[in-house]
Amino acid sequence: MTRKVSRVLLDLDEVPKNYVNILPHLKEPLAPPLNPGTREPIDPDALMAIFAVECVKQEMTMEKTVPIPDEVREAYMRYGRPTPLQRALGLEDALNTPARIYYKREDASPTGSHKLNTAIAQAYYARNEGVTRLATETGAGQWGSAVALSCAHFGLKAMVYMVRVSLEQKGYRGTMMRSYGAEIVPSPSDRTEFGKRIKAERPDHPGTLGIAISEALEDTVNNEDTKYTIGSVLNHVLLHQSVIGQETIVQLEKDDAMPDAIIGCVGGGSNFAGIAYPFMADGRYASTEFIGVEPTACPSMTKGPYKYDFGDTAGMTPMIKMHSLGKDFTPPPIHAGGLRYHGVAPTISALLNEGRIRAIAYDQIPVLESALVFAKAEGVMPAPESAHAIKAAIDAARDAKKAGEERIIVFNLSGHGHFDMGAYAALMDGVLATEAATTVVEQETKIEQSA
Amino acid sequence: MTRKVSRVLLDLDEVPKNYVNILPHLKEPLAPPLNPGTREPIDPDALMAIFAVECVKQEMTMEKTVPIPDEVREAYMRYGRPTPLQRALGLEDALNTPARIYYKREDASPTGSHKLNTAIAQAYYARNEGVTRLATETGAGQWGSAVALSCAHFGLKAMVYMVRVSLEQKGYRGTMMRSYGAEIVPSPSDRTEFGKRIKAERPDHPGTLGIAISEALEDTVNNEDTKYTIGSVLNHVLLHQSVIGQETIVQLEKDDAMPDAIIGCVGGGSNFAGIAYPFMADGRYASTEFIGVEPTACPSMTKGPYKYDFGDTAGMTPMIKMHSLGKDFTPPPIHAGGLRYHGVAPTISALLNEGRIRAIAYDQIPVLESALVFAKAEGVMPAPESAHAIKAAIDAARDAKKAGEERIIVFNLSGHGHFDMGAYAALMDGVLATEAATTVVEQETKIEQSA
Repeated sequence: MTRKVSRVLLDLDEVPKNYVNILPHLKEPLAPPLNPGTREPIDPDALMAIFAVECVKQEMTMEKTVPIPDEVREAYMRYGRPTPLQRALGLEDALNTPARIYYKREDASPTGSHKLNTAIAQAYYARNEGVTRLATETGAGQWGSAVALSCAHFGLKAMVYMVRVSLEQKGYRGTMMRSYGAEIVPSPSDRTEFGKRIKAERPDHPGTLGIAISEALEDTVNNEDTKYTIGSVLNHVLLHQSVIGQETIVQLEKDDAMPDAIIGCVGGGSNFAGIAYPFMADGRYASTEFIGVEPTACPSMTKGPYKYDFGDTAGMTPMIKMHSLGKDFTPPPIHAGGLRYHGVAPTISALLNEGRIRAIAYDQIPVLESALVFAKAEGVMPAPESAHAIKAAIDAARDAKKAGEERIIVFNLSGHGHFDMGAYAALMDGVLATEAATTVVEQETKIEQSA
Repeated sequence: MTRKVSRVLLDLDEVPKNYVNILPHLKEPLAPPLNPGTREPIDPDALMAIFAVECVKQEMTMEKTVPIPDEVREAYMRYGRPTPLQRALGLEDALNTPARIYYKREDASPTGSHKLNTAIAQAYYARNEGVTRLATETGAGQWGSAVALSCAHFGLKAMVYMVRVSLEQKGYRGTMMRSYGAEIVPSPSDRTEFGKRIKAERPDHPGTLGIAISEALEDTVNNEDTKYTIGSVLNHVLLHQSVIGQETIVQLEKDDAMPDAIIGCVGGGSNFAGIAYPFMADGRYASTEFIGVEPTACPSMTKGPYKYDFGDTAGMTPMIKMHSLGKDFTPPPIHAGGLRYHGVAPTISALLNEGRIRAIAYDQIPVLESALVFAKAEGVMPAPESAHAIKAAIDAARDAKKAGEERIIVFNLSGHGHFDMGAYAALMDGVLATEAATTVVEQETKIEQSA
């Protein structure tokens, strides 16, 4: 037997030089964002008041690639890119499967997730345009940590609205952001009119990403030095994440592996798109299957209608066409806080409708159980979000075993679980909340009625 | 200006093929461990009843190198070796120093510290000798996590006695060990006679490494299937850690850097020895300075007399000649739990006496403040233990600035601080316990009296 390589590494100068854009690869042009008043396509100038100008341009570009600025590439190198592609030798042994399983180590960045890929780029463009402060929301805290570090890197102030239930579950994510110099408040907060209104209605509101987005937008509109930065959903964000898949393509080639399945968890969709889109944009991978995985507690892809909806809860954003559970949907406080978003990226929604992406939803408990199988076999503690991809990869490896085929399964380990250990302690202690399942059933009725 | 490389990476096959032994490089033979009853050198057979036979052989070998078994090398590759050597470009900018600062990324292993380097080797030797269960102690939890994963890797059971105050400060380290399948109890525990006796005397005893070692030894002696495994102090442990320094030598050469100072924090001494000994064993680095850093709260190198003492608190170990604060010394519950050991490795003690190592002690608060300067500049959250090395590196870089010299400063980032965020939250909230300083003053009087 030839010796198996456990990790495929790249040199620093193999960090990609361009971002890969999915827009020119869609069968039909993406439905444009609409002005909610007029129902006409939004004026880009309106977006440029909120976002860095360069990000708005990237949001709409039909170029196949966008060059990565040198300063951004150098920051990528400093903070861990290219990340390793790991062969899951331990997991393969544990499952006794003929499948070859690979996972991309996006947990290797200092903030512990893939989010730095776009945070660095957005902070760079904002600084170049004279902005001195960024406002944003965060769910699980991976995004907020990435924004905080990116702002420290480029000398900007950072203001983070963190979903209250997530901040309570993992206050140390907040400590990390403060260590980088960011200001952070639990959302809903008293810092915005919208936050105050929500708290007046329901003082114990656990918060949602939709609410936190509304607060960060209100903060942006009211502060002239400030622009808004977002961690998922929009095309320019997913574009920046394409460094993941581009590296993975090179790494799989080096290990002579043609992937049968590419898997990622999906909240807004940025880590899934990051690994999948470069393969989808490359004709060589026409027979590869692309699988997005979400929690049954927040089933936007599998249960959400495809329609125009607001990106936030207050209705401050343009309307975007996406699979959505509705802007008022409040997901139960599952541990995968990063997947608690009512919608999913418009490009992922379009590709779901084209049939080029398959969506799966899993319950929290089997997902976290899969995470522990993985942790024991591989040593790496995964984020509960990433554990959704692990569960799908394990299921795919079991299918390969039944079929007796050496299938090649690749998933994105979007982040580590060092700030999520409470979830695993609760699982092992048998006290993991099962309310997620029941809460969502009530809301499902509402979704179906509104569909 | 030429572009600076931010990380020096190595290929998988650049994992060292041999361990480097410091024993033949000492000016005088190391004082042997003594049987406490007879005060005669201990019979190796007595040690082999406790440790894996191969480890006892390595403890005494005068060979300059010891081959690393293939299975151990492959486990190193799987779990992150070779680790990157990072150039601290962000920190250099923040300090505006002409010094070049490098840090070795031992935080990059899945358990988050250098401890896996020896845990893997010890578990491998034990399994080869038919052992099915390992018992050990852990302070901060980095060692216990490494043993837990190494046992999972080689199919052994793991039993971990964790210092109670550390388990309370960071229960999630315990969760990590349980995720890998280990059994874990707070020490002093009810699982051993010694633990019960300590608890009877002082029910709220915070625990010490010395007590936890005694418990793990008692467990080993009473269970035939079990051997003991230790994370620092002894020569075979420091030998295994020499992979760190060997990689660092190659990496510095690739970046054309001749080190002026090599720095590591010192508890028992394993991460410091791991980075320093390969340089000390290599004649090319005769003018390099080697700096070990400890907390003022547990000042074994700077205040502990050089004498024969027990390695544990119960007095179950052979007597070893080392700088020690005395086996009954109870350090205050500082956040750098991994540095709360009453003694320091015999080889480090000998090299201190030869004048080849310089020892520095720092207080907890400036150490953690340095950690935050580093985190903001580099993005990496350091372990409070490693932060001692950071503080010394920052001081050295400031000295270089005063002298106007481009000195090359290298330190070992022995671990990350993801399970130590409480320390940083306490610092930023201004509620960090200052009791460490006062507690130690009382005990210092005792040390001086006993010296």
